[in-house]
Amino acid sequence: MDKDQLYMQRCLELASNALGRTYPNPVVGSVIVYQDKIIGEGFHKRAGEPHAEVTAINSVKDKSLLPHSTLYVNLEPCSHYGKTPPCADLIIKWKIPRVVIGTIDTSAKVSGKGIEKLKAAGIDVKVGVLEKQSRWINRRFFTFHEKKRPYVILKWAQTADGFIDRERTDNIRKSNIITSRWARTLVHKWRTQEQAIAVGTNTVINDNPQLTVRLWYGNNPIRICLDTKGRIPANSRIFDNSAQTICLIQEEFRNLHTLLNHLHSINIQSVIIEGGTKFLESFLNQNLWDESRIFISKSLFLKGIKAPEIKGHYIKKLDFEAETLFILTNEKNNSDIYSDF
Amino acid sequence: MDKDQLYMQRCLELASNALGRTYPNPVVGSVIVYQDKIIGEGFHKRAGEPHAEVTAINSVKDKSLLPHSTLYVNLEPCSHYGKTPPCADLIIKWKIPRVVIGTIDTSAKVSGKGIEKLKAAGIDVKVGVLEKQSRWINRRFFTFHEKKRPYVILKWAQTADGFIDRERTDNIRKSNIITSRWARTLVHKWRTQEQAIAVGTNTVINDNPQLTVRLWYGNNPIRICLDTKGRIPANSRIFDNSAQTICLIQEEFRNLHTLLNHLHSINIQSVIIEGGTKFLESFLNQNLWDESRIFISKSLFLKGIKAPEIKGHYIKKLDFEAETLFILTNEKNNSDIYSDF
Repeated sequence: MDKDQLYMQRCLELASNALGRTYPNPVVGSVIVYQDKIIGEGFHKRAGEPHAEVTAINSVKDKSLLPHSTLYVNLEPCSHYGKTPPCADLIIKWKIPRVVIGTIDTSAKVSGKGIEKLKAAGIDVKVGVLEKQSRWINRRFFTFHEKKRPYVILKWAQTADGFIDRERTDNIRKSNIITSRWARTLVHKWRTQEQAIAVGTNTVINDNPQLTVRLWYGNNPIRICLDTKGRIPANSRIFDNSAQTICLIQEEFRNLHTLLNHLHSINIQSVIIEGGTKFLESFLNQNLWDESRIFISKSLFLKGIKAPEIKGHYIKKLDFEAETLFILTNEKNNSDIYSDF
Repeated sequence: MDKDQLYMQRCLELASNALGRTYPNPVVGSVIVYQDKIIGEGFHKRAGEPHAEVTAINSVKDKSLLPHSTLYVNLEPCSHYGKTPPCADLIIKWKIPRVVIGTIDTSAKVSGKGIEKLKAAGIDVKVGVLEKQSRWINRRFFTFHEKKRPYVILKWAQTADGFIDRERTDNIRKSNIITSRWARTLVHKWRTQEQAIAVGTNTVINDNPQLTVRLWYGNNPIRICLDTKGRIPANSRIFDNSAQTICLIQEEFRNLHTLLNHLHSINIQSVIIEGGTKFLESFLNQNLWDESRIFISKSLFLKGIKAPEIKGHYIKKLDFEAETLFILTNEKNNSDIYSDF
């Protein structure tokens, strides 16, 4: 691992402080290095607030060192006026002679123009340091801009014998809770990182879930529900005023491509699908998913509703006291070192 | 999980950005909340730089909100003049009416005096929110001040058949590398978090390790070696100039209590012991350890030097492609949700 990679790791570490808080912007961290020492660092906190490069430059006490320093940033600096002025201009203004970039910003507004601007100003620009990790940390942003659909995460919990829920026909309702409090806390943390959350219509009707963040600090995702047959009761918890809800009732949204296109059109960069089996399977069968997070508990239901079957690329397996967490991706990636779970 | 706990989680998250960088200070994060929104946050970056509370207060744009806000911090605010003025005074000056604290700072200079000062000024102070996690994130600091010795982490890697190394008598030297590049990267990250590193005399002589941080960005730990019989060659890598080394040659340091007392006296708050078996076993046998991190790979050596045997409280087991990582603590703790690995 060379020095540029080490400083890029720190950018990623800083960026991860803002996961789920920066929509529609990506998460970005930046460090400024003078003679092998970090003299400034920062991250983009939320849309409208200063970009990472600005925060990092502002944090440098002795600005006279900037013309002898290297600026590291996990994403190409912007070159356009958004809510804040272009970072490329600021870097040029401070005469920073070298910029190391994790990966190109492929969104239409930037897309190489930031790098061009820096190079045109005579700055030594290096692109592609920890590129895979830099793509991974902003996988929602990149999927949204490149595939024109939100990043789709499937999440479920199953028993050791492969059931996702008990049979609804059981007259005596037993507890259908599969995971420990620890796992549920982690799920709430995950919710803060995604822009939207969805479950199938039957899950809304049967479980009446709230789908908000209560066990972690962060933003509530937008609750998406499908109700093409008008079956969801008006007093369902997803219609309480604790978070935003978008209920899609048009028949066309039963087609997942149409659904994801629509979510893209309303600027939703990511969605976590939290059940049930049928809804999850429709994403799996149409190969419209990017990542799956599956808890397998030690409990047994003996009978019930079978969990989906999945094939994917294993990233991680974490064993905890009451359950094991499996993380899979749909496409092979090499994000083994950097992880934001 | 109530609201105070949620904001305390964010303090801990922020504090972890500075792990290994703040010695002799603890890691501290702080957030300021006005009407259920975080309006300022920060963390202590390194000794001499502003404390977390100062950074958080400075980051609030509209200071007129401070007299209507709550300040959260994972450790009791200081009440004494160190390299920076007391945080308790600053909180009082800004008329912040409520302060929520993770845990008391048990070091002699603070030890409840910060809380007393705040209360005397009429501030509503709540102490003990996510106390276990707040103690855990600063376990090195607390062990140092309360037990008057550094926090001791044992680390080793062993093969699936329980060997830590090959026999030195093998004429043909085969590779004795047990873990993957991924695990070695993680070990280097760990090194950045500890103040000192040590291996047994035989390991220095046989393996000639450098014991520095090369696969992560951060500080090198101080290299500690024991050489009571003058056996370590002067050209060993631990004596290169890439990091500080303290070589202890006095006979008395063969007693681990004396060794740890000495490390305490020179203000070392934590030490990671990276082998070999005999040295690790001496800490285990005398119960002078706090935490163990053990990699078990899938490879087999068939014969060799047996890894230590250990009994402890299991915290985590992480399965990766080439190895499994087990984390154990010597004493039962409940830090299952918060983790800084």
